[in-house]
Amino acid sequence: VKGLVYLNGDLVPADRACVPLLDRGYLYGEGLFETMRAYGGRIFALHRHLARLLSSAAELDLAIGVGEDELAQALALTLEANGLADAYLRLTVSQQCDAPGVESRAPGRFTVSAIARPLPAPAADLAGISVATLGAATAPPAALARHKTLSFLAYVRARAGARAHGADEALLLNSAGEITEASTANVFFVTDERLVTPSLQCGLLPGITRAIVLELARLRSLDPVERAVRPSELQACSECFLTNSIVGLEPVTRIDGGAVGDGKPGRVWSALSEAYSRAIAAASGG
Amino acid sequence: VKGLVYLNGDLVPADRACVPLLDRGYLYGEGLFETMRAYGGRIFALHRHLARLLSSAAELDLAIGVGEDELAQALALTLEANGLADAYLRLTVSQQCDAPGVESRAPGRFTVSAIARPLPAPAADLAGISVATLGAATAPPAALARHKTLSFLAYVRARAGARAHGADEALLLNSAGEITEASTANVFFVTDERLVTPSLQCGLLPGITRAIVLELARLRSLDPVERAVRPSELQACSECFLTNSIVGLEPVTRIDGGAVGDGKPGRVWSALSEAYSRAIAAASGG
Repeated sequence: VKGLVYLNGDLVPADRACVPLLDRGYLYGEGLFETMRAYGGRIFALHRHLARLLSSAAELDLAIGVGEDELAQALALTLEANGLADAYLRLTVSQQCDAPGVESRAPGRFTVSAIARPLPAPAADLAGISVATLGAATAPPAALARHKTLSFLAYVRARAGARAHGADEALLLNSAGEITEASTANVFFVTDERLVTPSLQCGLLPGITRAIVLELARLRSLDPVERAVRPSELQACSECFLTNSIVGLEPVTRIDGGAVGDGKPGRVWSALSEAYSRAIAAASGG
Repeated sequence: VKGLVYLNGDLVPADRACVPLLDRGYLYGEGLFETMRAYGGRIFALHRHLARLLSSAAELDLAIGVGEDELAQALALTLEANGLADAYLRLTVSQQCDAPGVESRAPGRFTVSAIARPLPAPAADLAGISVATLGAATAPPAALARHKTLSFLAYVRARAGARAHGADEALLLNSAGEITEASTANVFFVTDERLVTPSLQCGLLPGITRAIVLELARLRSLDPVERAVRPSELQACSECFLTNSIVGLEPVTRIDGGAVGDGKPGRVWSALSEAYSRAIAAASGG
């Protein structure tokens, strides 16, 4: 990252920004983050992202000391300081401590940072990517998987495992052998002309884009289903796509080496992707 | 922590030591640590700790850029700079990056730190602690649980959960409902006069003190067993203790609110604890 990052109220050069060694985010992976996308200077679904972060913070006893307004302002400052309108944004919060120790905390001392980097406008027609379903029980326990925490190593390793298998992205499985999500995205597929995505009970992040896609699908009477999904079912689907806040809806054209449908991005993806772009345009006042 | 910490070759005041915001240890909990204990100026089982860290680094594709000698020197420097002979030590390693991104790395740029703090000499007769077995699937996936990584939140939350139940420490369960380990220790118990500890296949950290206690038990013909253990079996045991490098062997006298045996530290714990103290004294030249 070139440029400036936001760090506890200041804007500092990215290559000089640092967090305390005695930060529980570093020592124990205790902290939360959000990744968001700005289009034309506005952060899409900002309130949903901040609400998720604050809700997770409350559940995980992270008294991060700032509210939604301060976090929104930190992100706006970061965009402005870097002169960015279309950007990737990452917001990170964690608590500091005075000494190592699994229960050691320094009340009132937090680390809040925001990082922005330029991104090209979304491609009109994305080429499909390949995914690999990895071994059983690669997903974190369900109680943690629903928060976007700094203890992210399971997802990092899943992605590395997929790359080692020649795939672009991994699909993680829970201990019951059910698909949960990709390393940095949720997963949707079409089977028997129904749109399906793993249910939150399977142990996965309640993605913001996932929620929006479900809403857009319902508005179009696509009647999406949230339920448990096995790899064998996914491998036989007619369409598949991933969702996250940075890429939006990304078509998957190969699963475990086999082609999905006719090997090209499908019609359901195309229709929902267009609806998602319109939702972004509407939110950006476009 | 007062005093000085080691950070990438320098000794710096603890309250001013900082790591890059763009460190994968902070952004993604990707990194490793070891906690060790120094007795009389010597770090007990140092080689075993460093070998575990370097072995995990190789498995997790963490090219940390330093070897065992440099890490040992960092720890020795930290002890010396703080004038400590009996101390807690934490060594942490992670890799830096140039931008956020699950696959983003800055080759050749690492963060190596060592923190020391004074600890009293071990108590001759520890009072027992209480533990709580928590809900199913609180343990991370087995493939990650055997490494001591910076993605430590599952253990932090387990400890917090135990505290909320009025217990001192948590016992985590894997997805099969088997006991794996405590939040910062391994667990041993005695049942039908046999010493038992969960096997590594259950998904747990191969603790250094755990390994030493198993060796000491075999030397005394205690014939310890490593196997899967259910909470109901543990709740009916005659003795229980935890092991880690900081406390050594710590007796457990209450499990889920019920007394263990007669509610006092038991004979097997006492014998092995004494043997462990002798091993420390021998290693320290005492």
